[in-house]
Amino acid sequence: MRLRKYGLNPGRIHHIFISHLHGDHVFGLFGLLSSLGMMGRKVPLHLYGPAELEELMAYYSKFFGPLPFDLDFVSPPENGDYIYECDKMTVTAIPLKHRIPAYGYLFREKGKALNIRKEQIDTYGLGIADMVKIKRGEDHITKEGEIIPNSKLTLPPYHRRSYAYISDTVYDPGLAESVRNVDLLFHEATFADKDKKLAKQTLHSTAAQAATLAADAGVKKLLIGHFSTRYKDPALLETEARKVFGETVGVKDGDIYSVPLKRLKRE
Amino acid sequence: MRLRKYGLNPGRIHHIFISHLHGDHVFGLFGLLSSLGMMGRKVPLHLYGPAELEELMAYYSKFFGPLPFDLDFVSPPENGDYIYECDKMTVTAIPLKHRIPAYGYLFREKGKALNIRKEQIDTYGLGIADMVKIKRGEDHITKEGEIIPNSKLTLPPYHRRSYAYISDTVYDPGLAESVRNVDLLFHEATFADKDKKLAKQTLHSTAAQAATLAADAGVKKLLIGHFSTRYKDPALLETEARKVFGETVGVKDGDIYSVPLKRLKRE
Repeated sequence: MRLRKYGLNPGRIHHIFISHLHGDHVFGLFGLLSSLGMMGRKVPLHLYGPAELEELMAYYSKFFGPLPFDLDFVSPPENGDYIYECDKMTVTAIPLKHRIPAYGYLFREKGKALNIRKEQIDTYGLGIADMVKIKRGEDHITKEGEIIPNSKLTLPPYHRRSYAYISDTVYDPGLAESVRNVDLLFHEATFADKDKKLAKQTLHSTAAQAATLAADAGVKKLLIGHFSTRYKDPALLETEARKVFGETVGVKDGDIYSVPLKRLKRE
Repeated sequence: MRLRKYGLNPGRIHHIFISHLHGDHVFGLFGLLSSLGMMGRKVPLHLYGPAELEELMAYYSKFFGPLPFDLDFVSPPENGDYIYECDKMTVTAIPLKHRIPAYGYLFREKGKALNIRKEQIDTYGLGIADMVKIKRGEDHITKEGEIIPNSKLTLPPYHRRSYAYISDTVYDPGLAESVRNVDLLFHEATFADKDKKLAKQTLHSTAAQAATLAADAGVKKLLIGHFSTRYKDPALLETEARKVFGETVGVKDGDIYSVPLKRLKRE
């Protein structure tokens, strides 16, 4: 129902990353799967999450299945390898410290093929084979044996965009290394500073702690959410976080943040 | 979240009636139970529904429990006895014909104690013991032996209000007997008349079939819902139903319909 409200086509979803098996992070999956089944989906759906997710879904299938499509389960590799990889991007699972097994996810674009400056195609009489090599980053050697550096033949490469989703977790300074320099970091901020003790007890974070992590990790922008309903006005949490890290925004379901595609600058 | 949206206090819910174990009729329960737990509920919650509900909730508890309050399960008595009764009302489970075990529910008020006409208290010098009897419906006998009929001493009794919830079910004319003369009937109306075959195949009803049942049962007002998302404008279903039964309203989540408390007329 939420996807429909936001004008999104659930049929286009092929990969779902689940952080942990608490109700507010997984109950929505049941309705989505049943709706996809009703809509006649045939192609597999890939589910990533703690190993217990597969067992949970076995019970779902027992009562509400079978689904007309396959579910493919992937739990985080223990050696830290990518949990997902395609030609466009990689996803890494980040172990979190919560009351039950929980993972954050780091989504990072792969480098795109370089774009060749059109005028150079004529200048150097580049053929298809030449261009394939240049797009990969190689220099060009003319018939005369002259070496034309790749940077002269191509536009600057695109920046590899990255997004990390961290929820739920106690404040863990060690996470800074996992999300270093990402463009966009979502970090849970369940509590205000005055409830710091409660945050530690329940293995959640305060807004200021989320901001401290963002500053330590040198991220470009921080999104905070997962606010406790005890705070009538979540602007309080945003204010507390911004004192520590200015580039913070408090978010709610359905908000959209874009990371623009930018070319890197060359020396 | 929906309860909060509609300004309802989930802590005041003590009894939940589940029709059947299809996702759109039971998935919301998981989030509600978890939220009640988070809110620190201590008093038991009574759940009524098909026997499989208890097994389903055992799996819920395994993954998401334990809850800080007890769940009390009641499945429909095979002899047709009330599934719930208190001093104010009774609830009867109505077996439906759907793809899996499913029940409708009939909610009916009990008769209220009669109100004594104030002026008669003085006229006949009524004491407490007299009034208890009169409120129960007995006639009054004066010291002189005169019989004063109860109807002269009391205001007309209140009508016993009733509401029946019927979803999901194939069109079943036999249901008319179970919901005879109710004030308010909700009946599913998944399909339009042109999809009558599909309704039969999937064990659902059309809007016109819901209206036919309402007319046969002599209900006061019919609410239809559970519309298939294939109909862009559910007004079509309302129109089809109204041709058969004028007192029909198409409803959506959160709509409120009141059944006013009325005194019966005496001869």
